[in-house]
Amino acid sequence: MEILQEVKSRVYKFGDKSADGNSTMKNLLGGKGANLAEMSLIGIPVPPGFTITTEVCTEYNLLGKDTVVNLIKREVEESIENIETLMGTKFGDKKNPLLISVRSGARVSMPGMMDTVLNLGMNDEVVLGLAKKTNNQQFAWDSYRRFIQMYGGVVLGMKPASKDDIDPFEEIMENLKEKRGIELDTEFTIQDLKDLVFDFKAAVKKRTGNDFPTNPWDQLWGAIIAVFNSWNGDRAVYYRAMNGYPAEWGTAVNVQAMVYGNMGENSGTGVCFTRDAGTGENVFNGEYLINAQGEDVVAGVRTPQQITKLGSKRWAELAKVEEVDRIENYPSLEELMPSIFNELNTYQDILEKHYRDMQDMEFTMQDGKLWILQTRNGKRTGAAMVKIAMDLLKEGMIDEKEALLMVEPNKLDELLHPIFDANALKSANVIAQGLPASPGAATGKIVFFADEAAKYKNSILVRIETSPEDLEGMNIAKGILTARGGMTSHAAVVARGMGKCCISGAGALKINYKRRILMVDGIEYHDGDWISLNGSTGNIIEGKVATMEPELSGEFAELMKLSNKYAVMKVRTNADSPKDARIARTFGAQGIGLTRTEHMFFDIDRIKAMREMILANTVKGRKLALEDLLPMQREDFEGIFEAMQGLPVTIRLLDPPLHEFVPHQLATQKDLADEMHISLQAVKNKVAELEEFNPMLGHRGCRLGNTYPEITEMQSRAIIEAALNLKERGIICKPEIMIPLVGTVKEFEAQEKIVRATAKGIFKERNETVEYFVGTMIEVPRAALMADKIAEKADFFSFGTNDLTQMTFGYSRDDAGKFLPIYIEKGILKNDPFEILDQEGVGQLVKMATERGRNTKPNLKVGICGEHGGEPSSVEFCYNSGMDYVSCSPFRVPIARLVSAQATIKSIQ
Amino acid sequence: MEILQEVKSRVYKFGDKSADGNSTMKNLLGGKGANLAEMSLIGIPVPPGFTITTEVCTEYNLLGKDTVVNLIKREVEESIENIETLMGTKFGDKKNPLLISVRSGARVSMPGMMDTVLNLGMNDEVVLGLAKKTNNQQFAWDSYRRFIQMYGGVVLGMKPASKDDIDPFEEIMENLKEKRGIELDTEFTIQDLKDLVFDFKAAVKKRTGNDFPTNPWDQLWGAIIAVFNSWNGDRAVYYRAMNGYPAEWGTAVNVQAMVYGNMGENSGTGVCFTRDAGTGENVFNGEYLINAQGEDVVAGVRTPQQITKLGSKRWAELAKVEEVDRIENYPSLEELMPSIFNELNTYQDILEKHYRDMQDMEFTMQDGKLWILQTRNGKRTGAAMVKIAMDLLKEGMIDEKEALLMVEPNKLDELLHPIFDANALKSANVIAQGLPASPGAATGKIVFFADEAAKYKNSILVRIETSPEDLEGMNIAKGILTARGGMTSHAAVVARGMGKCCISGAGALKINYKRRILMVDGIEYHDGDWISLNGSTGNIIEGKVATMEPELSGEFAELMKLSNKYAVMKVRTNADSPKDARIARTFGAQGIGLTRTEHMFFDIDRIKAMREMILANTVKGRKLALEDLLPMQREDFEGIFEAMQGLPVTIRLLDPPLHEFVPHQLATQKDLADEMHISLQAVKNKVAELEEFNPMLGHRGCRLGNTYPEITEMQSRAIIEAALNLKERGIICKPEIMIPLVGTVKEFEAQEKIVRATAKGIFKERNETVEYFVGTMIEVPRAALMADKIAEKADFFSFGTNDLTQMTFGYSRDDAGKFLPIYIEKGILKNDPFEILDQEGVGQLVKMATERGRNTKPNLKVGICGEHGGEPSSVEFCYNSGMDYVSCSPFRVPIARLVSAQATIKSIQ
Repeated sequence: MEILQEVKSRVYKFGDKSADGNSTMKNLLGGKGANLAEMSLIGIPVPPGFTITTEVCTEYNLLGKDTVVNLIKREVEESIENIETLMGTKFGDKKNPLLISVRSGARVSMPGMMDTVLNLGMNDEVVLGLAKKTNNQQFAWDSYRRFIQMYGGVVLGMKPASKDDIDPFEEIMENLKEKRGIELDTEFTIQDLKDLVFDFKAAVKKRTGNDFPTNPWDQLWGAIIAVFNSWNGDRAVYYRAMNGYPAEWGTAVNVQAMVYGNMGENSGTGVCFTRDAGTGENVFNGEYLINAQGEDVVAGVRTPQQITKLGSKRWAELAKVEEVDRIENYPSLEELMPSIFNELNTYQDILEKHYRDMQDMEFTMQDGKLWILQTRNGKRTGAAMVKIAMDLLKEGMIDEKEALLMVEPNKLDELLHPIFDANALKSANVIAQGLPASPGAATGKIVFFADEAAKYKNSILVRIETSPEDLEGMNIAKGILTARGGMTSHAAVVARGMGKCCISGAGALKINYKRRILMVDGIEYHDGDWISLNGSTGNIIEGKVATMEPELSGEFAELMKLSNKYAVMKVRTNADSPKDARIARTFGAQGIGLTRTEHMFFDIDRIKAMREMILANTVKGRKLALEDLLPMQREDFEGIFEAMQGLPVTIRLLDPPLHEFVPHQLATQKDLADEMHISLQAVKNKVAELEEFNPMLGHRGCRLGNTYPEITEMQSRAIIEAALNLKERGIICKPEIMIPLVGTVKEFEAQEKIVRATAKGIFKERNETVEYFVGTMIEVPRAALMADKIAEKADFFSFGTNDLTQMTFGYSRDDAGKFLPIYIEKGILKNDPFEILDQEGVGQLVKMATERGRNTKPNLKVGICGEHGGEPSSVEFCYNSGMDYVSCSPFRVPIARLVSAQATIKSIQ
Repeated sequence: MEILQEVKSRVYKFGDKSADGNSTMKNLLGGKGANLAEMSLIGIPVPPGFTITTEVCTEYNLLGKDTVVNLIKREVEESIENIETLMGTKFGDKKNPLLISVRSGARVSMPGMMDTVLNLGMNDEVVLGLAKKTNNQQFAWDSYRRFIQMYGGVVLGMKPASKDDIDPFEEIMENLKEKRGIELDTEFTIQDLKDLVFDFKAAVKKRTGNDFPTNPWDQLWGAIIAVFNSWNGDRAVYYRAMNGYPAEWGTAVNVQAMVYGNMGENSGTGVCFTRDAGTGENVFNGEYLINAQGEDVVAGVRTPQQITKLGSKRWAELAKVEEVDRIENYPSLEELMPSIFNELNTYQDILEKHYRDMQDMEFTMQDGKLWILQTRNGKRTGAAMVKIAMDLLKEGMIDEKEALLMVEPNKLDELLHPIFDANALKSANVIAQGLPASPGAATGKIVFFADEAAKYKNSILVRIETSPEDLEGMNIAKGILTARGGMTSHAAVVARGMGKCCISGAGALKINYKRRILMVDGIEYHDGDWISLNGSTGNIIEGKVATMEPELSGEFAELMKLSNKYAVMKVRTNADSPKDARIARTFGAQGIGLTRTEHMFFDIDRIKAMREMILANTVKGRKLALEDLLPMQREDFEGIFEAMQGLPVTIRLLDPPLHEFVPHQLATQKDLADEMHISLQAVKNKVAELEEFNPMLGHRGCRLGNTYPEITEMQSRAIIEAALNLKERGIICKPEIMIPLVGTVKEFEAQEKIVRATAKGIFKERNETVEYFVGTMIEVPRAALMADKIAEKADFFSFGTNDLTQMTFGYSRDDAGKFLPIYIEKGILKNDPFEILDQEGVGQLVKMATERGRNTKPNLKVGICGEHGGEPSSVEFCYNSGMDYVSCSPFRVPIARLVSAQATIKSIQ
C-alpha cells in the first residue's frame, strides 16, 4: 500500500525547550499538540511528551489496529525513552516510575471526544514506588484508584449500562461510603482506597471478562487506540455533523509526562495572569500553594498565596492580615522562592509577547523544578478587555486593527450600566432568578403599579407582565421585574430601549396585585420593601444593595475613537424621546434609525385624545381628536430634531393595533364614557370590536394609515411643521418618514401620497420648504419579495427584523416562550432568533430585499432598526449585506460601532 | 414629416354587407370597429358607419387637432356620404335627417374611456324633421334633450364642478320637476322637453362661454376630438397604468348611423339567443317589441313577445295565456313578420357558426328593415355552459380543446349543490345578506347550538361564529349561518370542506344565545322557525323554500371524462372522514392531499381523552391518554384508506394549538375536573396557560410534536397499524405522513425520526411492512427559503397556502376582515389573497420552494393543499409552477380537474 511505503514522521516529540512541530501544524498535530510544541520551541519548560499525528488516526480507520501499531511502535517507544531521559524517571519502574497522561486533540476543540487519562503507567508495584517517592500513601493510592476509574471508563467501556443506571465505579464507592458511614471522597482511609482498587479491578474483570491491564505498555496502547476510536464515537460523529467537520480530519493523541506539585515542600502548583483580569492593569499576578495539586487551589480548603510581593501585600491589606503574619504564613512566591519566581516571571513575559495577549497560565513545581502546564488567552472583564487592548496597542505589541478585533463587543455592555458594589454584593441573598432581560444593577422599593412608580425615590416596578400603559411608570422606576415574558417581552424590549435594568420571566414569583404582595418560596415581600435586581445575571436579591455608576474610562473613549476610524457602516439609535436621543448621541449615535411615535401617545393627556380619536365613528370626529394630538406630536419631534441636529432622524408612523390604546379596565372605561358623553356600552363595544385573534397579523402598521388616512396626515403635518419650526431657529433637520408594515407597492404609494400632499400643503402655507424622505420598513416577508417594485417609490428601506423574524418563522414573540427553550435545548435551533438574527433563513430575505432594492435604485439607503441592530453577529451580517447603517437602543450604540469597525477590518483582511 | 407623406387609409368604412376592415384588425380599428367590420363582411346588416383608426389617435397626440382634421377630413366626408347613400337620409337635413352615434374603441375594452354620444346631428331644425318623420314629437324632443345632455357632458365638459356638486343638467331637470310637481323623467310634457332643451343650451353658454354647436359637422368633429382626448383622460391613464397598457396603443373612433325601432308598427326592437341560456338547449329564442326602443324591452312596462312560435307557446303555457289571446295580443315574430323572422333566423345561424359559440344578439327593425346592432357570446348558466360546449363538440363546430376551454370552471360549482326550486323562490322574502361562503341552498329550522343540530330533521345552525367544538353539529345541520367571520372564517372553511351551504359575516344579524333569538331589522326569529340560505348568493330568506338536488347530467360526465384525457396535473381532495373521501372519489379525486387529524378529536368520546392528554403534566400521563386515542385514530385511518384504496392518502399530524381542545365554559371545565379528579382551578390554570397572544404564530404544528413527541408517536402508530391491518385484508394503502408547520430542517428531521422509528418498531412487531412516505407542509416562509435543505430529507412537499399567505402578507385570516374590504375597495389589493393566490408575492415563495426542492431532489413530489387548490386561477398557477397535484375540498374536485386540463391545453398552444 502506498501509505506504508511513505517515509514520514508519525510521532512528534516536544520538551526540553525544543520540539519537532510548531503552532502552524494544527491540522497535523491537533490544536493541543501544536500548542505544546510551540511552547516548548520558544523555551517554555512544558512536561515532555509527544503527539501522534491526526494522519495516523486516518490510517487507523483504514488499516486497523495491528497495522497502525506496527507503523508507529518504534517512534512511540523512542519518544517514551526521550521523556524518561528528560524526566529522569522510567515508564513502569517500581522505584522511580514515569507516569503519563494521554489525551485526544483534534484540529478544533471537540467536546464529543475522549476525556483525559491521567497517571497512566500505574500498577500494584508502581503505586508503592510512588508512595515512597512522595512519602504520601494516601495520594499514591488515591491516584491509583482514580487511574483505574478513568482508564476503566474511557478505555475499557466501564460506563453505566443504561441511562437510568449509575456509573459502576461510583456504585462501588457509594456502597463503601454507606458501609463506612462517611459522605465525602476525602474521608476514605488508605485501607479504603486499597479496597476500592481491589473492588474496581474485580468489577472490570466481571464486566469485561479480562483482567485490568497491569503492563504500562498495554495500558498505553489501549489508551491510544481508545483515542482513535473516540473519533468515531456517537457524540463526536454527531458533533462533527452538526458543525460540518469532515471525518477525514482525524484526531491526534497527546502523551505527556505527569508532574506533581505535591511531592513535598519543594513542590507546588499555581495559576497566574500576565495582567489583571479584573481591571486590565499591567501587573503580573496569580496564586499558588506549596505541596499541593491543582485541584487544591480550586477547592479552596487552603488559602492560596499570592505570586508577587505586591499582590501579597495588597491581599493582606484587604484580608486584614498583619505583615508579620503574612511573611510567616502567606509569603509570596517572589519572597519564598525568588529564583523560581524569576523564571516564572521570565516565562510570563515571553508568553505574553509571543501570543500578544494577556495570558492565563498554569504551573507546577515538582521538587524544585518549574513546569508550565498550560497557557491561554485569559478571560477578563469588559473593563479589563478594553484597557488591555488599548495598552497593548500603546506598547506596540499589536496594531490598531488587532486592538479592535481583540475586544468582544458584547462585553462593552458591562461598562455602560450601573453595577453593584462588589463588596456590598458579598452578603447578598439571591431569592430567585429570572432572565437577564436588560443589563445593569438596580435597587429600590417594590411598587406593583406603574402609576405608583413615583411614590418612592427609588422604586422597582414588579409586574406579572407589563403593557404599553405602564410606559411612564417604567421610565420612572429604577428597574423592572416581571414574572412572565421572555427576553423579547414588552418589558424586556422597552427596558433595553431605555437602558434600564430589567429581569423578566422570573417564574418563581407569585404576584398578588390585590394584596400587593410578591411571594417567593413562601416568603412575602410587600409594597415598599427593598429589592435589588442584577439585570446582567438575572439575580433577584433581597434588600438594598449599593450600586455604582459606570465610569467611561479613557480607554473606552480611545476605543470608540478608533472604531470610528475604521467603521464604514454608520450606527444610529432607536430613540422615542429627546432624552434618549441625547444619551445616544453621547454614545456616538450618528442619527436616529427609529422613532416610534406610538409611545408618545401613552402620556396621560395624550392617551385621552388618542382614545377619543379611536372612539370617533366618523372621519370628522377623528380629525377633531387628531387636532388635539397635533401640537403635542409636533413638540415631541421638535425636541428630538433638536437633540439630533444635523443628523438624520427616521420617524415611523403609527404602528401598533389600536386595541393597545383603549382602556381595558372597567373603571377607566367608565371615566372615558363620562368624558366623551357616550354610554359605557359604546366604549365596551369599541374595545371588543378592536380585539383581534392575532393582533400581530392584524389591523396595524400602514393598514391603520390606509384605513384612517387622517392619522397619517396629522403625523406628517407634525413632522414637517416641527422641521420648519426648527429651520426658523437655524437648526438643521433631516426628517425621514417611515411607513410601517408595508407588504404591497400600493400600500406604500397610498401612504406616500398623503405624506407628500401634506408636506406640499404646508410648504405652500409657510412659503418655506425642508428636505425630507419617505421610505419604508421591510418587515413583512412579502415586502422583501417585492423590494424591486417598492424601491421604485421608496427613498429608503429599514429592516424591521423583529417582525420579519416573527413572520418568516411563524413565531409569535409573545408566545414562543412555550417552545423556544425546548427547541434550543434539543438543538433544533442554535439560538433564539429574536436575539440573534437567523442569517440562514431570515437573512436570505434581508439580502434579497437589499439586492433587489438596489437593482432598482442603486443608491437606495438601507438600514436595520430591529432589536438585532445591536447584536454583534447580526450587525456584522448587516455590514456584509451592504447596509448603510444599523440602528439600536442607545446603550448598544458603542457595541454596534465597535462591530461596524471590526466588520470592515475583517472584510479587508 | 414622414407621417404626412405616407399614403394610407385612416378611415375604414363598413355597411351593406361589406367592409374595409375585418376582425383581425383589432390593433388598428379597436375591438368594436373590427367586430362591426367583420359582421358586415359576413353579410350581417349592421347600420353603416366607419372607424377612424387608432393610429390617427397617436397622430393627434403628436401633431394636434388642426393637422389631424386636415389629414382625415376628406375620408370622413366620403364615409358620411356613404352612410347617407346606404340609409337614404342626409346628415343635417331638415326633413330626412341622418343621425349618428360616436363611440371610442381601443384594442381592449377600457372602462376609463369616453361614453357614447347618440343622436348626433340634431339641432332645432332637425328635431322638427325627426318629429314629423316618426310622427312622435315627444320622442324627437326627448332625443334632442338627451343629445344635448350627452354631448354637453362628454364633449363640452359640462360635468359637476366638484365631487360634492351634482350634474349641471340634472340640476335643471330636478328644478323643473319640483316646479311641475312631478317625479319621473317620463312625466315631462313636450313643452317641458322644449324648455329643457332651451335651458340646457343656456347653461352651456353660461358655463363654456360658447353657444351649443348647431352645425352637425361641428358636432361631429367635436365628438371625434373628444374621443381622442379621452385617451389621455385621468381615468384612462390610471386604468392603463394599472393594467400595463402602453399609451401608444391609442383609441379608434366609431361613427355609425342611428336606427330607430319606434318609427311605427313596421318598426321594432329585440334581443335573441342562438341557444337557451338557461338549459343550453339548441333552440333559437328571444323577445321583441313592436314600435319600441331597446330600453323599452328592458324597462318591463310592456310585456315583450317571443321571437319563435315554439317559444311563444311555451311562454303562454307558463303565463296561463289562452291561445286566442296569445295570437291576438302576443304573436311571435315568426307569426307576425315571417320574412323578417326568416332573415333573423338566417343571421343567428350564420353568427353562431361564425363565432362558434352561442350568440346573444340585439336587433332593430326600422320601417320594415332589419338591422343587427350587436352580437356577442351569450352569458349562460353553469348547466347551459356544459351542455353547449358538449353539443358544439358533437356538432363538430369546435374541437375537444376548444370545448374544454369554453367552460368557465367556477360555473361548475352550480351543478354540484342543491338549488332552490325556481318557482318557490319567486315569492321569497330576503331578510338579509351575508357572504356566499359555501355554495348551495338549504332550508331548515333554526338552532343556536351545535349540540342541538339533531333536534330537527332539517336544521340550520345559526351562530355568531363557529369553533372547532361545533364541528359535529355543523355536519348534521343542513346549512350554517354566522353573523361574523369572512370567506375564510372557521365556518366558511369547514362548510366548504363538507360541501355544505354556508353564509358567513351577515352583519345585520343580532344573535342572543341566552334568549335563543335571531333579530334582523327588529324582527325576531326563534329556535324552530324556518329559514333558508342561498350559499351561492348570500341571501338569507324567511321561511321554508323548496330545494332540488343537483343532477349530474350526461354532459357533465362527458366533460369530466374529456378533462381527464387532457389533464396532466392530478387532483386530490382534502378529506377528514371516510364519507368525505367517498364523495370526493365520486367526483374523480385521485387521492387525498390533506387529512386533518385534529377534526377527529372533537367527537364526544375523543375530546375527553384529548383533554386528559393535555392536562397531564407528565410524559407518562400523556402517554396513558394517548393510548385511549390510538384505537380510535387507527379506525379513522382504516376507513379513509379503505375509501381511497389504491390511491395515495396524505395525513397531516396534529396541527392546531392545544388551546382549541380545552373547554372554555365553566360547566364543561367543572365536568372535566370531576372526571379527572383534579381541582377546577387546575383546569382553569391549564386553559389560561395555553392561551396565546397570537395563536396562529404560537405553539402549534410540528412545534407540538417536537415538544410532545409522544403525540407524533401515537399518530404514526395509528397510521402504520391501520395500513398493515388493511394490507391483511388485501387492500392497498399508500400512506403519506405529513409534518405541519416546518420552518427548519431540524424540526423536520426530529419528527421524521420518530415516525420512522415507530414504523420500524411496528414492522418488527408484526413481521410485515408497508411502503410509506414522510413529507412536509411548506407553509412557513422560512420553509420555502430552506427548501433545498428540507428536500434532502422530505419525500414530498405540500404547500399550505393559507398559512403561507398569512405569514407572507402578515395578515391574520381571522382579523383581516377589518381592512381587506377597504383595501380591495381602494384598489390596494386586487383580490382577497385568501381566495385567490397572490401569484406576485406568495407565488414567488411557491416557485422558489419548488425549484429549490427539485434542485436537491429532481423527482420530489410537490402539491398544494391550501384552499387555493380549488380556485381556478390558482390551480393554473400550480400547474405552471410544475406541481404534481392540487388538493381541494371534494366539491371543488371537478373544477380543479377541468382547470388542470385547461392549463395543459393552454401550455401546449
